[in-house]
Amino acid sequence: MKNTPYMYSPTIQKLIDLFSKFPTVGPRTASRFVFYLLRLPKEEVEKLISAISELKNNVKICKSCFNLFESEGELCQICSNPTRNKSLLCIVANETDLTAIEKTKKYQGLYFILGGTVSALKKTDLEKLRIKELENTIKNRSEIKEIILALNANTEGEATALYLERFLKAFNKKITRLGRGLPVGGELEYADEETLSSALESRR
Amino acid sequence: MKNTPYMYSPTIQKLIDLFSKFPTVGPRTASRFVFYLLRLPKEEVEKLISAISELKNNVKICKSCFNLFESEGELCQICSNPTRNKSLLCIVANETDLTAIEKTKKYQGLYFILGGTVSALKKTDLEKLRIKELENTIKNRSEIKEIILALNANTEGEATALYLERFLKAFNKKITRLGRGLPVGGELEYADEETLSSALESRR
Amino acid sequence: MKNTPYMYSPTIQKLIDLFSKFPTVGPRTASRFVFYLLRLPKEEVEKLISAISELKNNVKICKSCFNLFESEGELCQICSNPTRNKSLLCIVANETDLTAIEKTKKYQGLYFILGGTVSALKKTDLEKLRIKELENTIKNRSEIKEIILALNANTEGEATALYLERFLKAFNKKITRLGRGLPVGGELEYADEETLSSALESRR
Amino acid sequence: MKNTPYMYSPTIQKLIDLFSKFPTVGPRTASRFVFYLLRLPKEEVEKLISAISELKNNVKICKSCFNLFESEGELCQICSNPTRNKSLLCIVANETDLTAIEKTKKYQGLYFILGGTVSALKKTDLEKLRIKELENTIKNRSEIKEIILALNANTEGEATALYLERFLKAFNKKITRLGRGLPVGGELEYADEETLSSALESRR
Repeated sequence: MKNTPYMYSPTIQKLIDLFSKFPTVGPRTASRFVFYLLRLPKEEVEKLISAISELKNNVKICKSCFNLFESEGELCQICSNPTRNKSLLCIVANETDLTAIEKTKKYQGLYFILGGTVSALKKTDLEKLRIKELENTIKNRSEIKEIILALNANTEGEATALYLERFLKAFNKKITRLGRGLPVGGELEYADEETLSSALESRR
Repeated sequence: MKNTPYMYSPTIQKLIDLFSKFPTVGPRTASRFVFYLLRLPKEEVEKLISAISELKNNVKICKSCFNLFESEGELCQICSNPTRNKSLLCIVANETDLTAIEKTKKYQGLYFILGGTVSALKKTDLEKLRIKELENTIKNRSEIKEIILALNANTEGEATALYLERFLKAFNKKITRLGRGLPVGGELEYADEETLSSALESRR
Repeated sequence: MKNTPYMYSPTIQKLIDLFSKFPTVGPRTASRFVFYLLRLPKEEVEKLISAISELKNNVKICKSCFNLFESEGELCQICSNPTRNKSLLCIVANETDLTAIEKTKKYQGLYFILGGTVSALKKTDLEKLRIKELENTIKNRSEIKEIILALNANTEGEATALYLERFLKAFNKKITRLGRGLPVGGELEYADEETLSSALESRR
Repeated sequence: MKNTPYMYSPTIQKLIDLFSKFPTVGPRTASRFVFYLLRLPKEEVEKLISAISELKNNVKICKSCFNLFESEGELCQICSNPTRNKSLLCIVANETDLTAIEKTKKYQGLYFILGGTVSALKKTDLEKLRIKELENTIKNRSEIKEIILALNANTEGEATALYLERFLKAFNKKITRLGRGLPVGGELEYADEETLSSALESRR
C-alpha cells in the first residue's frame, strides 16, 4: 500500500490507517470496513459515531474489581450485588475473562481484574499489573477465604499464577487454580500428557 | 451472548452490536474492538470519530466510472487524467478490484465499476448492477475499442462475465477477459485441470 | 483420477488404490507413497515388506484387556505385570487411547479395550463393542473397586460413557470419568461454558 | 514416543518407524496405519505385500523421457505413441507434474522428466537433475521445435527455469514457459501484483 498514495483518497486512507490499528485488523480488512461505512446509510454511520462518543463518556471503572460499568455509583453491578459470596475472590487477567466466567453462571463470588498477564517476571511488566491494588483489596477485606487464580493455561497465565502464588502466600488465604482436564470435545489421542494426567487425577 | 444482557453495560453492548455488523467481524472480535477503544487515549478516539464523519462528507462518486474520490469536480483522478488511454474500458466489480489493478501499474485505460457481481442471472440481482449506466457509457464514448471484463475467476465472476459478454455483443467492441494460468507460487501438482490447460495454451 | 486409467501403469495404480484405503490417505498422498517406494533402495522396500508380514504373524491380542502384544503367553505385559494395581480398571475405546494414558505414567491400574465407541445406542453399533467380554471381566475379577471410563469428551465418547454407566450400575462398583477442565495452553476466552464450569468446580 | 520403548511391541514399533519415513507421515499417522493393517483381513494384507513387491519388479524407467512404465519395450506409452507431436518437448520436474499435464488432455507433445528442481544453482544440486540426458535428447532429436518449461511458479521452479533457459540457449529452439494468470476460483482482491499483471497482459 506504501508506494501508492494516489490509490485511496486522503479521507479514506486516513480511516484505513486508523482501523488498521484495531486488534486483528490489517490494511485489507480496514479498507473493507471503510467501503462498508461508505455504503451504509448516513443515519447508521451517525449511530456508530454516537456509540463511540458515549463509550468514553459513560463507561466507568469499578473501584473494587476494576471491571467496566456504567450504572450509578462507584461499584459495578457484580460488586454492588449483595447476594454475591464475598468470601471468594477470583483473579482474572481482563474483562473478557470475567465475562467468560460469568457466562457459566457457576460462580457467585467477586472478581479482581489484574489488567493483564506477564510472560516473564520482569519488573517493568509486573508494574503494568494491579499488584498494589490487589494487595489493598486483600488487606481490607478480611472476609475473603479463597482466592481463585483464573488465568489462562498458557505460558503467560502460568508465569503470572506462579508469581501471584508466591506474592499471596503472606496473606494466609486458600489459593486455588482452575482445574485442568479434557475440554469438551477433547480426544485422548490428541491430549498432551499433562492434560491427560490432570484429567486422570481429577476423575470423578 | 443472547441470554446475558447484564454482562456488558448498555453502551458497550450497543457498540459491540454495531461493530458486529462490520464485514468479517463477529461478536468476539467486536468486543475486542470496544476494549481497544476503551484503552485508547481520548484524542485518538476523537481522531477516529472525525475520520468517520469526514468520510460521508468528503467522499464523492465519480460520474464516469463510479469510483470514489474527493478532489474537486465531478470526475475521479483516473477519469480526469488526460494521459490515460480512452480506448480501453476495464469493467470491475468494485473499488477494491480497481485498486488491485491500479497497483500493478500495467493498465493505462479507464474503468467502470459495476457495483457487484451476480451468482445467477436473476432480474433482482442484475438490477443491483450498473447495467444501464454501463450501456450509456459505451454508447456515449465511441473511442472505446476494447472492453476488459476484469472479474473474479470464481462462479459469480464467471456468471457475470457471461452475462456481460452477451449484453455487450450489440455494441460491436472487442471484449476480453483476464488470462488464466498458474498464479505466482502455484504448483502444477495442485493446479486444477482448467487452470493448467489455460497455462499451457497461454505459454510464451 | 477416474477417467484416466492409462495415466499410471497397472502396478502403480493398484498400489495407489491400496494405499488410498489407509486412514487419512487420499489418492494424491497415495501416489506420493508409491513414488517414494519407487525411489527407495530395494533392501529398504524388503524391510517394509517383511515388517508388514511379521505384523500378522507376531502380534497377538491379550486375553484379558484385548490390547495387542507379542511376548510369550496369553497376557500382554501390562496384564502380566504383578505390580499393577488390580483394583482399578480403565475402559478405553482402543489401543491408541491406552497408549496415550500409559505415556502419562500416572496410571498403575489395568485396562479394558472396548473396541470402539458408539454414536447412538443402536443395537448394531453396540454389538461391535466388547460388552459381553467386559461383563465377564467384571464378574470374574472381584478385586476391581473402581472402573474409570476414559473415553473422548466428544459426542460419541459421551454416548458410550452414558451407556456404560447404566450397564455397569448392576455391578456395584465405583464408576468415574476423566476430569474436565482447561487443557494445557487453553484460554478462558475461548473455552466453552461447560469446560469452564468444570474447571471452576474442579479447582484446587 | 522416544522414552517409551515398552509402549508398542517391537514388530509394531518397527513398522511405525518405517511408515514414519513415508512423505507427510508422522509417528501418530504411522501408528494409525499399523492399527489399520492389524484390523485388515489377512488376504488384504497379502494383496498389499504383493503389490509392493511387484512395484520394484515390474516398473521400468522410459529410456526417452524417464517416465515410469511397465509395458513391453524400452519406451513408455507416451514416447511409443506414434500420434504424439514430436516437435514439442515439455520439461517437467517429476512424474506427478507429467500426470497433471496429461490429465488436461490439452498437450499432445512429448515429455522429459528432469528429476527435480533446484533452489539455488549449486553444482551439487544441479548434478541431481538429468541435465546431461536432456542435452543428449535435444541433440539427437532435431525434430524438436519448441521446449516448454513446465515448472512450478514458485522460487525453486523459477530458479530451475532460469538455469534451463540459459543452458538451452545454445540449441536454438523456441523456449516457452506456462502462462501466468488468475487460477480458477482466483479473486482479483487476493491476487499478487505479478499474477494480476500477467493476467492483464495475457487477456483474450
